[in-house]
Amino acid sequence: MKDLNSQGLRVKDNELFLLDQTRLPDEELWLNCKSPEQMIEIIKSLRIRGAPLIGVGAAVFLAIYYQNGATVSQLREAAAAVRASRPTAVNLMTIIDRLLGDENDSDLSVELIVERATKAFEEDVALCEKMAQNGLPLIEQGDNILTHCNAGGIATVGIGTSIGVIRKAHEAGLNIHVYVDETRPLLQGARLTTWELDNLGIPNTLICDNTAASMMARGKIQKVFLGADRVALNGDFANKIGTYSVAVCAKHHNIPFYTVAPYTTLDKNAASGADIPVEERAMEEVQGAKGCFGDVRWAPANSQCANPAFDVTPVELLSGIVMDAGYFDNKALRAGVLKEL
Amino acid sequence: MKDLNSQGLRVKDNELFLLDQTRLPDEELWLNCKSPEQMIEIIKSLRIRGAPLIGVGAAVFLAIYYQNGATVSQLREAAAAVRASRPTAVNLMTIIDRLLGDENDSDLSVELIVERATKAFEEDVALCEKMAQNGLPLIEQGDNILTHCNAGGIATVGIGTSIGVIRKAHEAGLNIHVYVDETRPLLQGARLTTWELDNLGIPNTLICDNTAASMMARGKIQKVFLGADRVALNGDFANKIGTYSVAVCAKHHNIPFYTVAPYTTLDKNAASGADIPVEERAMEEVQGAKGCFGDVRWAPANSQCANPAFDVTPVELLSGIVMDAGYFDNKALRAGVLKEL
Repeated sequence: MKDLNSQGLRVKDNELFLLDQTRLPDEELWLNCKSPEQMIEIIKSLRIRGAPLIGVGAAVFLAIYYQNGATVSQLREAAAAVRASRPTAVNLMTIIDRLLGDENDSDLSVELIVERATKAFEEDVALCEKMAQNGLPLIEQGDNILTHCNAGGIATVGIGTSIGVIRKAHEAGLNIHVYVDETRPLLQGARLTTWELDNLGIPNTLICDNTAASMMARGKIQKVFLGADRVALNGDFANKIGTYSVAVCAKHHNIPFYTVAPYTTLDKNAASGADIPVEERAMEEVQGAKGCFGDVRWAPANSQCANPAFDVTPVELLSGIVMDAGYFDNKALRAGVLKEL
Repeated sequence: MKDLNSQGLRVKDNELFLLDQTRLPDEELWLNCKSPEQMIEIIKSLRIRGAPLIGVGAAVFLAIYYQNGATVSQLREAAAAVRASRPTAVNLMTIIDRLLGDENDSDLSVELIVERATKAFEEDVALCEKMAQNGLPLIEQGDNILTHCNAGGIATVGIGTSIGVIRKAHEAGLNIHVYVDETRPLLQGARLTTWELDNLGIPNTLICDNTAASMMARGKIQKVFLGADRVALNGDFANKIGTYSVAVCAKHHNIPFYTVAPYTTLDKNAASGADIPVEERAMEEVQGAKGCFGDVRWAPANSQCANPAFDVTPVELLSGIVMDAGYFDNKALRAGVLKEL
C-alpha cells in the first residue's frame, strides 16, 4: 500500500500508525497498529474517533492486514469484528461493506482491497474539501461560531467536516472566533478541538457545555457548526451527546444551527432518527475523567450514572446540512432531498 | 455562643468548624476557622458554598470573632471584607448588613451580635423547613426530578432548598428518582448532590450537564427543581452556570421548572436579572478539575476560557418559585408578588 498521511493516520512502508487521541493535547503518541484485536481496542477506547476517521482507519487497517498475509476468511472475520466495535457511526459499516464488496472470496485480491482502502482515504480528503467549500458561504465576517466535540482533521483524514468549514472561513479572512464546548464526558472539545484550532491559528474560547446557552443569550454566538455520526433520510441526525441540547438552545435564540457531514455518514436504511442506535458507554466515564493528564474520579465510587455517547437531533431544529454534494436547507431536507442522493 | 450543628457548619465551645466541600465526597475534613483571612479564603475557594450557607457562615464567624476579642472597628473591617468575598449570592450581603444593623459602635454589644448570628442560623433552618412544605404539593408519585448544582443541606444550614423539597417528597413515600447534573466546572452535582442524596437514601442518577436535554426528549424527566443565588423582584433569578440552559430545554419540552429560595435570597434592589452581577472565575477551573481526587488539566495549557460562575434565568422560563412565604407561580411573579414580600 502506498504511503498515506493525515493529521491522525499515517501509512509508512506498509505499516499503519494512528495518533492516540486519548493522549492529546499534551502528548502526540503514534500507535503502530498490527492486529485486529489492537485495532478494535483502539476504536473502542476512542484512541481514534470521529465517524469518517474510524471508517477510513478500519479500511486501511484491513487492507494492510490482508496484504501482510491474512487469508480471506481472516479478513472477513476481522472486518466483521471491527465493523461491530462501535454502534453509532455509520461510516464504519458503510466503508467496510464497500471494502469487501460483493465479490466471491476468490475475486477478493490484495490489489482490489488495497485499491479500495486507498480510495476511501483519498475520497475522504476530497469530501472534506467539498464540504468546506459548500459551507463557506454560510459564514459571515466576524462570526462567533459555537462547535461541539471535534469534527476536524483528526475526526477525518482531510481538513475535517465542521472544522473544515471553519478553517476555510478563517483562511478567507473572515475574522471568525470559535466557542468550543468542552464536550463531557470525554472532553473532545477541551482536549482536541482547542488543540486543533490553536495549531491552525484560529482564535477560540473554551467553555463548559452548560455555558453555551448563556453565551447565546448574551449575543455572543452567531452560528453553530458541528459534525454528525449518522444522518437519517429525513434529516434527523445523531452526533455526540450534547448536540441536541445545543440545537434546542440555538432554536430558542434563533441562531442558525448547521451540521456538516459527507455522504458516507448518511444511513440509507434509517428513515428517521428513531432508527439510529445510540451507544451507552461505561459509568466510569461520567464519574470522572481519564487521559494523559491522569485518571481521576470525583463522584462517589458507586454512583449510578447514565452515559449515552450520542443523542439524536430532529430535523425540525436544523437550519441545514452541509454535504459534499451541496448545502441542503431545512426546506430541502423536509422535501426529502437526502433520499435522492 | 451556643453550640450549633448542621451538615456543613458546627459551633462547638465557641469555635467555628466548616466542612471543606472541596474535599467531598471522599473526605470529610472540618476546618477550624479562626481569622477573617481564613474565612475569606474559605468562601472564595468554595470550601463552603451555597448562598444561604455562606451568609449564615459569615454571620456566625463574625460573631465568634467579635466575642473572642475583636474591636468594633475590627468587626466592621472584617465584615466589609467578608461581604465582598463573592459578588453574586445576595444572602452574604443581606445577612451581614442585618448582623451589623444601624447601631452606633457603642451599641454593638457582643450579646447583640451573637444573638443576631444565632438567629440567622435558626431562621435558615426554619426557612428550609417551610420551603420544603410549600414545595411538596408540586411533586407527584413516581416523578423523576432533575436538579443542578447543589441546593441541599450543605448549601444551607437546614435541609436545603430544592433538596429539602426533594427530601420531603422522598420521606412522604412519593417514590421519586433524581437526575443530577454534574455541574461543571466545579462538579457540585457530581461531588456533593450525589453524596447528599446517597446519604439520604434517595435514588439518583448522575449525568453530564449536556445530557439533560436528551433525557427530557426521551420522557425521562418530569420536573426540574433547583436553587437560586439571587432573585430579582420581577422573578428573574441568578443561579449556578447551566441553570439557564436547563430552563430553555425544560421550556422546549413543557417540563415544569421550579426554583426554591428563601426570602434572604431576594434582592430588593434588583428590579430584574439585568441588575444581578455575575462572577467571572479563573480559567483554570475550565481547563481541568481540582479536588480531593487530584488536580488535573486536560485543555492546552494556555487555552482561552470563559468561566461565568452563574447565569440569569428570566421569569418567562420559570413555572414558579417556592419560597418560605409560599409558592408563587409564574402569573403571581409577573403580577409583582415579590415586591410585596
